[in-house]
Amino acid sequence: MALPVSPLAPASFPSLPVIPGVRFATTNSGIRYKGRDDVMLAVLDPGTTVAGVLTRSKTASAPVEWCRMALAHGQARAVVVNAGNANAFTGKAGDATVQATVKAAAALAGCSPAEVYLSSTGVIGIPLAADAIARVLPAMADGLSEESWEAAARAIMTTDTFPKGSTRTAVLSGRTVTINGFCKGSGMIAPDMATMLGYIFTDAAIPAPVLQALLSEINERSFNSVTVDGDTSTSDTVLLFATGKAGNPPPAVAEDSELADFRRALEEVCLDLAQQIVRDGEGATKFVTITVTGADSNEAAKRIALTIANSPLVKTAIAGEDANWGRIVAAVGRAGERAERDKLKISIGGVLICADGMEVPGYDEAPVAAHMKGKEVDILVDLDLGGPGRSTVWTCDLTHGYIDINGSYRS
Amino acid sequence: MALPVSPLAPASFPSLPVIPGVRFATTNSGIRYKGRDDVMLAVLDPGTTVAGVLTRSKTASAPVEWCRMALAHGQARAVVVNAGNANAFTGKAGDATVQATVKAAAALAGCSPAEVYLSSTGVIGIPLAADAIARVLPAMADGLSEESWEAAARAIMTTDTFPKGSTRTAVLSGRTVTINGFCKGSGMIAPDMATMLGYIFTDAAIPAPVLQALLSEINERSFNSVTVDGDTSTSDTVLLFATGKAGNPPPAVAEDSELADFRRALEEVCLDLAQQIVRDGEGATKFVTITVTGADSNEAAKRIALTIANSPLVKTAIAGEDANWGRIVAAVGRAGERAERDKLKISIGGVLICADGMEVPGYDEAPVAAHMKGKEVDILVDLDLGGPGRSTVWTCDLTHGYIDINGSYRS
Repeated sequence: MALPVSPLAPASFPSLPVIPGVRFATTNSGIRYKGRDDVMLAVLDPGTTVAGVLTRSKTASAPVEWCRMALAHGQARAVVVNAGNANAFTGKAGDATVQATVKAAAALAGCSPAEVYLSSTGVIGIPLAADAIARVLPAMADGLSEESWEAAARAIMTTDTFPKGSTRTAVLSGRTVTINGFCKGSGMIAPDMATMLGYIFTDAAIPAPVLQALLSEINERSFNSVTVDGDTSTSDTVLLFATGKAGNPPPAVAEDSELADFRRALEEVCLDLAQQIVRDGEGATKFVTITVTGADSNEAAKRIALTIANSPLVKTAIAGEDANWGRIVAAVGRAGERAERDKLKISIGGVLICADGMEVPGYDEAPVAAHMKGKEVDILVDLDLGGPGRSTVWTCDLTHGYIDINGSYRS
Repeated sequence: MALPVSPLAPASFPSLPVIPGVRFATTNSGIRYKGRDDVMLAVLDPGTTVAGVLTRSKTASAPVEWCRMALAHGQARAVVVNAGNANAFTGKAGDATVQATVKAAAALAGCSPAEVYLSSTGVIGIPLAADAIARVLPAMADGLSEESWEAAARAIMTTDTFPKGSTRTAVLSGRTVTINGFCKGSGMIAPDMATMLGYIFTDAAIPAPVLQALLSEINERSFNSVTVDGDTSTSDTVLLFATGKAGNPPPAVAEDSELADFRRALEEVCLDLAQQIVRDGEGATKFVTITVTGADSNEAAKRIALTIANSPLVKTAIAGEDANWGRIVAAVGRAGERAERDKLKISIGGVLICADGMEVPGYDEAPVAAHMKGKEVDILVDLDLGGPGRSTVWTCDLTHGYIDINGSYRS
């Protein structure tokens, strides 16, 4: 945690308003960290619905498998997150820890086990004592507060250099509702210490299936459109909770036109949080936006955009402030989606660099070089295939800082 | 070219014997480099057959597209390779350069244009004058020699820190035949300056379709099983030429049992050359062998092995001499192939680290830590799914040296 704050960090943690029906407490568990809280407990009022997206990893952690089961019920009363140990690849011992934690949290919240959600983030493969989290939970009941958003965001941090929060309001069937979220992550994976976790809360009344449809759709364009190093964690989790305290008439389907403003606000919160993860990318010095247009489909556009975003050669060129568009051409070529060399157009910082299969006549690199020196780099790739497919992804550069953070010994 | 020689380089360039029917000349073109030869010409006697494998990039270079066309004929008389400019993404001007070079080489060798093979390696997107190569070819005819193997290997280098050659003999239908090869490359892609090119020559008599079947099969386990940074170039090319001077009875099919020893020797040459590319990986300090067994198929095993090999987190951990097997677990989990957490077994340096979904009881990290300090790191992942699928891939670590080489400005 001695890492300096990312140069791309926001000026401060935003002020998150109270969301009726949501309370937090944090504490130190002694599992790994000293001098900071590393367990976050959220208690939710009865009637709270939940939606979630979980890692597709074939080696998912025990807490992820638990959440997958619990999400089938759609109701939530408690969330417990610990930082410092991922409880991943810990075998039957890992399952025992999940069971003990769920039991303690259910007792505290007065709910059924299936209404408890868990996440663990930290080192993989280190066994976690069955009661390591359960034993600190009872004492946390007294400290529950509606206002501890920043403390909650800080308690789930690992290699993060700043806590990440976001808030928006929306009008839903005539009522103003609030959406607050916080998250952690600074490598897209980094199974030691840099899993992506996100928790979003609203006072809107939205049935679980509708909530799930909204989250799945928006997740694809936000949390699933950022990458630091192309890795996927054993623990990646985003959960969205709706307490219903706003008292709006619950929408029956995700397509309900009353949801338009809520959908806009939810996407803004997810995007803000996802981009903050990139801004805290390990070793990052540049925030990079890559848009691909003119593709056969959105999926094709996204695959090409992610191939560019994950290319070590593109990422090191950006770190070196080098407008090396040849590396972008090569990434497009190997992405496995249709592209035509002589139609491809690449712009950096709004300046068209190549078209018709070659550098544009009279190309002046000076304004592009100036753009590359800034903290925000914009790359536009127009495949010009006549299709409607487009996608935007966000990433950061690859620097010596990344090697320093990930190439040093665990202990 | 001021880079220090890789610490993983072989002690010296091997002594490559004459192969009757193959002669080389090299020269400096003035395209980019000073004080070294950067054009390689090979002239082959009439009757030489050829096989090749070319990049699958959708933005392949003009010389690659030329070779794709020429390979349909199966005959070769001349090969021209230049280093310093990839003639990729150079539009119609790039095609004009190919035409002019082919014409000059055909005149020199006294052959048809379809018997000329070209490769270009270097920066992408910089136009190359139509006669830049053609104008230096005529004067090279006088310098043709059967012995200039090392000079040829050196003339095609870009960011390579050492020339790469290999030789084997084999018995084919009672005759001893020779296989010589050389190649260049130090990033799997690196469109500036680090494309993979390989040229292999034999005096065996083998019809083009049989040669192609052998090369395609062996390429998959050699050149297609190494990775430095997961990128694929616009120019990757491997060509195999057979002059027929050994006078063996030509085999009719690749399955001919007389080809067994030739196949063995060809695979050894391809593997030796492919591994030398990894040993010259940009910034490499460790040579890493990753074997995956017990998979559903060889393809599944290879996809998992390459996911591990391309993980920046695995590669930086190896650079840091950290036996961080949690990162290997995570890479297996996200590879997109079937894996079962509780069956997975991971060994490093021959020591079993995890099984049954967790670290093995009493695991002693000391011998593994000692293994990680060496220059050769061996990782074995047994999926234990009961399938016959297995694959071995080779890669290197990801170090500050890689960032230095690729994060500095092109000029």
